[in-house]
Amino acid sequence: MAVYTEVTDEALETFLAEYDIGSIVAFRGIAEGVENSNYSLKTSRGDFILTLYEKRVDPADLPWFLGLMEHLARREITCPQPVRARDGEALRVLCGRHAAITTFLPGVWPRRVRVEHCGPVGAALAALHLAGADYKPRRVNALGSHGWRPLLDRCRARADEVQPNLTAELDSALTEILAAWPAALPEGHIHADLFPDNVFFLDERLSGLIDFYFAATDFLAYDVAICLNAWCFETDFSFNVTKGQAMLRGYETIRPLSVEERAALPVLCRGAAMRFLLTRLYDWVNTPDGAMVTRKDPMEYLRRLRFHRWARDEHSYGL
Amino acid sequence: MAVYTEVTDEALETFLAEYDIGSIVAFRGIAEGVENSNYSLKTSRGDFILTLYEKRVDPADLPWFLGLMEHLARREITCPQPVRARDGEALRVLCGRHAAITTFLPGVWPRRVRVEHCGPVGAALAALHLAGADYKPRRVNALGSHGWRPLLDRCRARADEVQPNLTAELDSALTEILAAWPAALPEGHIHADLFPDNVFFLDERLSGLIDFYFAATDFLAYDVAICLNAWCFETDFSFNVTKGQAMLRGYETIRPLSVEERAALPVLCRGAAMRFLLTRLYDWVNTPDGAMVTRKDPMEYLRRLRFHRWARDEHSYGL
Repeated sequence: MAVYTEVTDEALETFLAEYDIGSIVAFRGIAEGVENSNYSLKTSRGDFILTLYEKRVDPADLPWFLGLMEHLARREITCPQPVRARDGEALRVLCGRHAAITTFLPGVWPRRVRVEHCGPVGAALAALHLAGADYKPRRVNALGSHGWRPLLDRCRARADEVQPNLTAELDSALTEILAAWPAALPEGHIHADLFPDNVFFLDERLSGLIDFYFAATDFLAYDVAICLNAWCFETDFSFNVTKGQAMLRGYETIRPLSVEERAALPVLCRGAAMRFLLTRLYDWVNTPDGAMVTRKDPMEYLRRLRFHRWARDEHSYGL
Repeated sequence: MAVYTEVTDEALETFLAEYDIGSIVAFRGIAEGVENSNYSLKTSRGDFILTLYEKRVDPADLPWFLGLMEHLARREITCPQPVRARDGEALRVLCGRHAAITTFLPGVWPRRVRVEHCGPVGAALAALHLAGADYKPRRVNALGSHGWRPLLDRCRARADEVQPNLTAELDSALTEILAAWPAALPEGHIHADLFPDNVFFLDERLSGLIDFYFAATDFLAYDVAICLNAWCFETDFSFNVTKGQAMLRGYETIRPLSVEERAALPVLCRGAAMRFLLTRLYDWVNTPDGAMVTRKDPMEYLRRLRFHRWARDEHSYGL
């Protein structure tokens, strides 16, 4: 369920009166997404998305996100565009939440990933990295490598309830990851959450990217590692090296990886698995039983992490 | 979250190839609804809703539901219309589920009910009752008065975990309700679930009714009682008699209640509160902790039930 804040019809009408986008025709909650409240909004002028930013998004970051989306679109990346109200502002307040209307993007996200999806996703990720290069403002990645130890510490007291000895396994893995973490790799703005539900396809072609609310400035190859985690494991958690190869080759058609980036792939993948494991674990141990939210199973990422700890070098990923 | 069955893009394409409704433009899960999986489907020809019927719907009932929706539309009730594939069939199979595409209905459901909504809802309910009169096939209401005792029995073992002495309070209330239940009142096809999220408004006017998958043949005034429960309580569970009066007067502009129906309102309202209390309670005690579904709090209906047990006659509801 991706609707945390219910918008009353009066509030919506008052809000839309500030825009020049026609009158309301329909307004439905969107099931996808877990961080913010998303509504599909149809007006007499067309289709839009209304997003209410929920607690995990820092309002101070919102101009950076919206600015990045506008910047990327000017460089041919298809992504939602903030719609400005009559006063020129796109970022507004609705029902006590920061909120923005963005353009509607055609396409369907792949519920079941096939090899043919992975090449285009790799290429789109590389294109995003190049297009972002001259977006000057930076955003520290709070969920990057420096954030993992504090996050694990906040789960420590209850992690072993999820699985016996989980704390010990994560402590050991995290120490190993941080010791091996690259000191320097090419940096830029990364999407940082390019999961299948954030990538649309139409007629077998990638038609757009959405949900830039985890984007940050970090190692570009770490974004590749996130995508390998998100797209290239089967439902039994085995790594599909054909998908990995397709993704990496797709990426390299646009932006070749350096020798250092290739060599760092295993540790970057371990870090990426750790990042999603920790945020899911944090949610798991901090969500009361019976709460009206969907929790994602952190253990799926332990399975991925174990593969990455076994992986010796970039050959394990198809290079 | 109202998406239980994820539809892969290949399955969707194969499915849509059987229709003459254009090619896919977008496909998003809809957050509203808890029984079935609902998707908003945009094609090159327009907007549609794709519903996959989940386990609580008996497939044998689906032709009855779809037939009722077609019947009602022919009698000027605005509700979704089943879209037939090229072979003339509207009811099909997708991803191992029975599925149907229906037309898209403009409108917004009221997140916060105001008095002004209640009159039109009452009138629409009465119009639905009249329009259904010549739809010949009947459907037994499995969640009608005969279903409540068996349902309570299936919750009995764990009900007191939800609230101390709940079983005793429900036993006593149910015995009282069934003893006072009318032997005969005007019958017909009732919507049986006309909650705010199933009623759309546009420009302050009621624009359509959706979700007929609890519809059945039962006392018409019982449907009124369901709506009084669904629309006329405030968030603190106090009954708003102004809303009740608006709803009942709206209903009576189209179909006046008989003396017997009016007199039965308190017991019908108690029964309606019991029905929603019991299905929620059943889900509550049968949903494992940590399951990825949203449970609704059954106790909200205990609060409503207590009001109805206190209510003496139809004057308590605004008549």
